[in-house]
Amino acid sequence: MFQLKSERSEFCILIFYTPTMTDIDTKCINAIRVLSCDAITKAKSGHPGAPLGLAPVSHILWSKYLQFDPQWINRDRFVLSCGHASSLYYSLLHIHTKVLEIEDMKNFRQYKSKTPGHPERHILPEVEVTTGPLGQGISNAVGLSVTSLFLAERYNKPDFPIFNHKIFCIASDGDLMEGVQYEAASFAGHQKLNNLICFWDNNHITITGNTDLAYTENVPMRFRSQGWHTISVENADTDLAAIEKAIDEAIAVTDKPVLIDLHTTIGFGSDMADSEKVHGNPLSVDQLKNLKKRFGYNPEESFVVPQEVYDHYAKVRENTAKKVSDWNSLFQEYGKKFPKEYAEIQFLLNGQFTAEMLKEVIPLNHDSSVATRISSGIVLNKLAAHFPGIIGGSADLAPSNNTVLKGENEFGPTNRKSRQIEFGIREHAMQAIANGIAYYGMKGLVPFTATFFVFLQYLLPSLRCACLENLRVLLIMTHDSIGVGEDGSTHQPTETLAQCRSMPNINVFRPCDQLEVSAGYATALTGPSRPTVLVLSRQGAPLCEGASFDGALKGAYVIKDAAEPKCVIVATGTEVSVALKAAELCPFPVRVVSMPSMELFMEQTEQYRREIIPANTPVLSVEAGVSYGWEKFSHKHIGVNDYGLSAPCAKVFEHFGIVPQNVAEKAQNLVKFYEKRPIPELIERP
Amino acid sequence: MFQLKSERSEFCILIFYTPTMTDIDTKCINAIRVLSCDAITKAKSGHPGAPLGLAPVSHILWSKYLQFDPQWINRDRFVLSCGHASSLYYSLLHIHTKVLEIEDMKNFRQYKSKTPGHPERHILPEVEVTTGPLGQGISNAVGLSVTSLFLAERYNKPDFPIFNHKIFCIASDGDLMEGVQYEAASFAGHQKLNNLICFWDNNHITITGNTDLAYTENVPMRFRSQGWHTISVENADTDLAAIEKAIDEAIAVTDKPVLIDLHTTIGFGSDMADSEKVHGNPLSVDQLKNLKKRFGYNPEESFVVPQEVYDHYAKVRENTAKKVSDWNSLFQEYGKKFPKEYAEIQFLLNGQFTAEMLKEVIPLNHDSSVATRISSGIVLNKLAAHFPGIIGGSADLAPSNNTVLKGENEFGPTNRKSRQIEFGIREHAMQAIANGIAYYGMKGLVPFTATFFVFLQYLLPSLRCACLENLRVLLIMTHDSIGVGEDGSTHQPTETLAQCRSMPNINVFRPCDQLEVSAGYATALTGPSRPTVLVLSRQGAPLCEGASFDGALKGAYVIKDAAEPKCVIVATGTEVSVALKAAELCPFPVRVVSMPSMELFMEQTEQYRREIIPANTPVLSVEAGVSYGWEKFSHKHIGVNDYGLSAPCAKVFEHFGIVPQNVAEKAQNLVKFYEKRPIPELIERP
Repeated sequence: MFQLKSERSEFCILIFYTPTMTDIDTKCINAIRVLSCDAITKAKSGHPGAPLGLAPVSHILWSKYLQFDPQWINRDRFVLSCGHASSLYYSLLHIHTKVLEIEDMKNFRQYKSKTPGHPERHILPEVEVTTGPLGQGISNAVGLSVTSLFLAERYNKPDFPIFNHKIFCIASDGDLMEGVQYEAASFAGHQKLNNLICFWDNNHITITGNTDLAYTENVPMRFRSQGWHTISVENADTDLAAIEKAIDEAIAVTDKPVLIDLHTTIGFGSDMADSEKVHGNPLSVDQLKNLKKRFGYNPEESFVVPQEVYDHYAKVRENTAKKVSDWNSLFQEYGKKFPKEYAEIQFLLNGQFTAEMLKEVIPLNHDSSVATRISSGIVLNKLAAHFPGIIGGSADLAPSNNTVLKGENEFGPTNRKSRQIEFGIREHAMQAIANGIAYYGMKGLVPFTATFFVFLQYLLPSLRCACLENLRVLLIMTHDSIGVGEDGSTHQPTETLAQCRSMPNINVFRPCDQLEVSAGYATALTGPSRPTVLVLSRQGAPLCEGASFDGALKGAYVIKDAAEPKCVIVATGTEVSVALKAAELCPFPVRVVSMPSMELFMEQTEQYRREIIPANTPVLSVEAGVSYGWEKFSHKHIGVNDYGLSAPCAKVFEHFGIVPQNVAEKAQNLVKFYEKRPIPELIERP
Repeated sequence: MFQLKSERSEFCILIFYTPTMTDIDTKCINAIRVLSCDAITKAKSGHPGAPLGLAPVSHILWSKYLQFDPQWINRDRFVLSCGHASSLYYSLLHIHTKVLEIEDMKNFRQYKSKTPGHPERHILPEVEVTTGPLGQGISNAVGLSVTSLFLAERYNKPDFPIFNHKIFCIASDGDLMEGVQYEAASFAGHQKLNNLICFWDNNHITITGNTDLAYTENVPMRFRSQGWHTISVENADTDLAAIEKAIDEAIAVTDKPVLIDLHTTIGFGSDMADSEKVHGNPLSVDQLKNLKKRFGYNPEESFVVPQEVYDHYAKVRENTAKKVSDWNSLFQEYGKKFPKEYAEIQFLLNGQFTAEMLKEVIPLNHDSSVATRISSGIVLNKLAAHFPGIIGGSADLAPSNNTVLKGENEFGPTNRKSRQIEFGIREHAMQAIANGIAYYGMKGLVPFTATFFVFLQYLLPSLRCACLENLRVLLIMTHDSIGVGEDGSTHQPTETLAQCRSMPNINVFRPCDQLEVSAGYATALTGPSRPTVLVLSRQGAPLCEGASFDGALKGAYVIKDAAEPKCVIVATGTEVSVALKAAELCPFPVRVVSMPSMELFMEQTEQYRREIIPANTPVLSVEAGVSYGWEKFSHKHIGVNDYGLSAPCAKVFEHFGIVPQNVAEKAQNLVKFYEKRPIPELIERP
């Protein structure tokens, strides 16, 4: 066998016709390579390097190990962390899974195709995990592994291994350079996630050139230091037996996650093999012809897969179908023997949270001026007590975030049953892992994460993925404003609300008191599947007279009305109580609106919106955050267009004028200002 | 000596009075401990655990190694990555540096004090680096090291070691769990940054409890895998000789950065020693008294530092003053012998970029419809050719970001002179390292970073720090919209512009063509010190007739006027050319405004703003991003309130209606809509 690590393409070409190249495996591998490149060259866009290098391991994995039926909950999970190798994935989903037609391959990267530039699950549901942003996929895979081990420990019974599958992930150099991945790897090693097997596409090439331009760490040693088992395959281009041996060894490891270091050649078989040029440039028509010739294909034909390749994979599917059928029988029998557990699994699989269901469970008394983070902790515990699928934790701030689940010890290698996960000080991986839990495919599993709101920025790329894929994940973000006080500007989120609200497919919910906290959780669980960010105070939140559970569900409502108001004050979170006090200081009637969620409010009818915020009335908004974005809802905003400062909480609010006296003053100024001029329309635009 | 690693506080108390406890070092250490705790208890807020555990190494470092004079450019840099230990830092800045009075210690965490909850450089300029968000400080330290080695190689001459200092950093467990830090460590090891020495406060306690709840990786082994030298100090509580020995060993290492693993006891000497309770809870008055008794202090007195401690540190200062004086003489002599280099250093130290200076260097011809990223590459190279302090690079996307500096090879262990840094696929560390370069304290050094705009989210926490500290850093963000095309929604930033613009202290500049690209760079260098985000297109940007360098400097200007316009169309970036074409399709006069920077526009006079966007005219805005935030500037926005999609670029623009025909139609609808109703005022609010 040949070691291609540091050779150039001239040499690659010479070794294509080794004896192993004629068997069915090689035919399948070359079919995957050629089909992937056909798609890319036709699209004139895409990344041929990785599919050419990764075809061998992908074929071995998908034909001999991966038990993949997209409808089967106990399927093995496959995560292509290097999403730019999408054409490889699509080739597999065509040849193996048959969910893509050859037409879909021809429409690669085209308008409204099922085969976008990077694998996107909302477009192709058989894609396990949406990838492209590097580091995310491998971290999602950690979440998938957590979920499966959790389910296995919780529901498997002697002779009933209902959940016993593996998580396979392919990651590129780029994935392994990203911070989120280090965090996830450290977590995975600590947790001894023994069903997680990651392949490292060690082709030593990145976009700029050789990886050693920037990346010379000893990757296997690093993974070992993080508690992983590592295996090396010296020639993953042609030594198929070595790949199999490595996977066998990985599967035999029972106490650790495994990294398989695959020495591959980027762009194997192409004129640009082993060069950064083949990473993101489609093969030209001529280069594609050369490639086809080398693999024994007719260079004039495109999108042709040999029948024997299809036939081979038909057998693979049959094999899996048999296993699925056996599992279904087993699961039916399980249902008879363990009806309670079976019902619970069914709820997790199909879990629908209804408003009625939650109204019984959630509402808090409306009697205590505690911080909204404290109310949140109570609701979270109520939910966890009633629903088995509430699972998550904090980035080392559980006591501060009030996300400690009573009666649950930490999830860990010897306690897989627990729903309380200690993520460590790893915000980014925390969210990516939570996404993985949501990706697992059980609607009744609702992962939650928690940290200080200002540190949401650390996990933003994962939140974006969750939004893009409409994942029902719950972010419990406490210490939500300058109310943090003494910790100062590094810990006071002022721009973070605007940054969240600017994201499509999100529910950003900032409750004013106990009752609205309950409503926030209700919207998170009963609304459309999407991320909900609960934005909660560190400091005490006075009870707000007029607070309404049903009103809060609508995003905004009148919390204190007045006959013929001369001004409307809109506020969110802890500033609602300030607005209520300010209203009393005004010498004219004032309506106060609590607006915990701009997004939910905008989803109501125009008529409702007009009822709450009437035209022709000056509107003042108060929120301890930047003004950016408030122009839609108010004529003037009292906020914090800076990064806060370090002082006791009350002093900081005073400094920024978020106190009743100043708000009342500004309301009076505003009313005066608009006495003699037309009042600009808000919210509704042509 | 005693090993306290896993003992509880009862035991700690017993060993306080060992013989080493009577010498001056111990007195200094205890003075630092007591003063730090006095400040925290008085403030009723703060983190005593780390200062108590870190006082020994801090004293040894600051009294025997660190050559620190805040005014001296060749000073050693000290970075307290665990910013929550701020009272420790302030104690040192009081006792050692004398820039804080005892009154400042009494005002710890109070309104307008010099001693905020976490060390903030804009409040206390002697703070080298603002810390608090974990992982940032140690990554900034990598940037400081890069800068010093760059300057040394570039300017040192035989017998003239002008730049030869060290970077010392103290990091907590939390720092070492954060992704940004892994990336920075991997970079530092690769780069063999041999003047960087990091202490790991290995106290095995985090907020939730023992670190082994979540973090069991072999940290020294991990650092070794990343190319670091590691040293362990078994008892860093009392074995001062071992601490010294470790630092000596670290300094002797000439080819690697060094991690010193300090086994410390959190809250050493307090009733809560070795427990998570002492991390973030102030000692009670009684607990503080107990602490003082144990350290031989009068429990009834507060904020008392023994005179002999002051005297000891006076000698330390004298020693440094002598070195500074010698250095000044050397530097004067250097000036005579190497006047060119001397002048260059002077420019770097004081560097003021003036508009005149740049107008000569920067402007591009206005003749080519290239992508703005391509124009950017040309300007960047012009700047780099004229100014020695332009230094930076990309996160493995240099060819795509057009940030390749001609004639510069990559900065590396054998090429410290280069200004081209290959950051690897490590966006977050890239920005943190760039911040470190900016923190170095040379106004003429302007670091730049580059990646795809959508991946700005990966580095957002570091960008926030840069904004907070008004660092002049330049972010060259290409592939700025749905114009990315085939790569699809994972690669198409739509919310990212709004997320950047919502940040205080930033300049977000999205130029429409060549000329505006030049202006963007000019605003980045000549405006107030702050981050500038250049938002640049992947796809070609048609030349816009009417584009103006001077107009763009003002943030927005009329690019195409019309007599008595019935509508104003505001656009940014590549959408300006769409707006210009749309204007021609309208059956009435239309003014087109190019608005490359909302922030710069808002900094103009109200009169100017009114001139550009008159009241009483309907305004339509066009930008391939979310509407969020545009309500301030327009009555209707044509944008992308979703995450984009995968298809050829033109098709994606068509799908979202960002084409001249649709814009013209919407303009007509808008004009019609406002024919019979008042036009809401924009921009200016009461």
